Amino acid sequence: MPVGPNTSLVEVRRVNGDLAAPSHDKVTIEEPLEIQVGLERRGMRAIRSISVTMRTPGQDDELAAGFLFAEGVLNRRSDVTGMEFPALEGDGSTNTVRVHLKAGVSLDFKQLERHSFTASSCGICGKATLEAVRKLSRTLSPRPADAFRVSADIIHRLPARLRASQQIFEHTGGLHAAALFDAAGNLCSVREDVGRHNAVDKIIGAAWLNDRIPLSDKILFVSGRASFELIQKTVRAGIPIFAAVGAPSSLAIELAEACGLTLLGFVRDARFNIYSASHRLDTMHQSPEAAIVA
Amino acid sequence: MPVGPNTSLVEVRRVNGDLAAPSHDKVTIEEPLEIQVGLERRGMRAIRSISVTMRTPGQDDELAAGFLFAEGVLNRRSDVTGMEFPALEGDGSTNTVRVHLKAGVSLDFKQLERHSFTASSCGICGKATLEAVRKLSRTLSPRPADAFRVSADIIHRLPARLRASQQIFEHTGGLHAAALFDAAGNLCSVREDVGRHNAVDKIIGAAWLNDRIPLSDKILFVSGRASFELIQKTVRAGIPIFAAVGAPSSLAIELAEACGLTLLGFVRDARFNIYSASHRLDTMHQSPEAAIVA
Repeated sequence: MPVGPNTSLVEVRRVNGDLAAPSHDKVTIEEPLEIQVGLERRGMRAIRSISVTMRTPGQDDELAAGFLFAEGVLNRRSDVTGMEFPALEGDGSTNTVRVHLKAGVSLDFKQLERHSFTASSCGICGKATLEAVRKLSRTLSPRPADAFRVSADIIHRLPARLRASQQIFEHTGGLHAAALFDAAGNLCSVREDVGRHNAVDKIIGAAWLNDRIPLSDKILFVSGRASFELIQKTVRAGIPIFAAVGAPSSLAIELAEACGLTLLGFVRDARFNIYSASHRLDTMHQSPEAAIVA
Repeated sequence: MPVGPNTSLVEVRRVNGDLAAPSHDKVTIEEPLEIQVGLERRGMRAIRSISVTMRTPGQDDELAAGFLFAEGVLNRRSDVTGMEFPALEGDGSTNTVRVHLKAGVSLDFKQLERHSFTASSCGICGKATLEAVRKLSRTLSPRPADAFRVSADIIHRLPARLRASQQIFEHTGGLHAAALFDAAGNLCSVREDVGRHNAVDKIIGAAWLNDRIPLSDKILFVSGRASFELIQKTVRAGIPIFAAVGAPSSLAIELAEACGLTLLGFVRDARFNIYSASHRLDTMHQSPEAAIVA
């Protein structure tokens, strides 16, 4: 039973110690979304299925756009002439989004398969190497703007500001969040999804659809960990600072260093670690090393 | 600089309030693993690449086996004649695992592409519908054993026992864990990985390689959330109870119900919720409903 934006009420038995009682629980809705592209070439029209992702419904246009842009399938916003949601259900929902491309725009599907921009941690995705990513980053993205700087104080405020803006997480505990902040720490946009890649795709897709790429004056803050593929998407969008509540992986750090992205981890409780490109953090007081290195 | 099993020491700047100091941080190693299969048919040998996954190195044989079995690519353990790790580096590491199949065993790669068992939350994976999963579950797996039962008390103990066994998480904060427990709450196996699918694939792969499928007398406990694709893998392995520290998604609950799997969420602090097939939890005291439904 849907009970609000992207949540559903289910019957559960709540167990507390050795007591159990029937109750209800709000859960995050997870449904498959098929992303299709509509191509027109020499007067011939064709529909091709690109991917299926498990996602939290909502902002499916942003998700599709963000996915296609962040994975390197599309570059120019102007290549997209419109989006369609075929097979709308009675309640207005659909699990298909069709992205129509300008006549003459073609996708090399073999290329898409073999040199997919993203290597995912899910296990069944396209092939990618760090070298391929670096190369693609060099050709497709500007190096993140060095002029963009923030103070540590702004970073410390991000977790509370993200929490204050999250709509579903507090109720279900089942969502990942991604948010864009400006240098003054103002929240510019926030997206939530069962898939952490999706939350970032939605954020980037919304910006791409509004011609705001590169996001050279923004901080991307995520509620989870910093993995390789999230760093890839961040670099692709030209974002200079990536901050995560959780830990980064070794390859995430390597990629951030290679691309000149500022990577912050464990951003919580007025602390964080700087893993790369620390010059974007405004000069802070240097503490006696012994006081911090424990 | 590697400093132990699957961790690397990196230079960071630690920020605490407005103080910053150079320091070091242990991070989880994340590297790509390419899974290949070696086929022999009518005397012809061929190597095919199946997938690339970002993973924490270690137990790559289990990961490859678990992936191939859990995704429905392989059914019989006897189809695998051996595994090879080509291109070993000087330090003994490699990022390729080649699974050799018995002569005559063939894989329908089109089938693999189109009817992939898993729909991933990462966004670039094969297509799957709930109906397809239910069908596959019916044909490939026994329904989880109804005779298997546990007491709530055993479930309450899982988080502490998992924490006690985790080797890397405490140091890096960057890993997902999956563990098998028996009905008495004894830890049978535990695996950690940067990818939560991988941790489960390693657990299931180890069992499959040792001819222990179906795991009809085990509880699978994971450190994160309960998503659709983890439920898929659990059903495929014939595990009767899936327990998660985090929240389940709506589709995870639907699939668990459809397959008769017992799904437990928010397993922590001597509490949990039962979302499906509650008959496997031994009779507990019924609390007055008003006392718990808040």
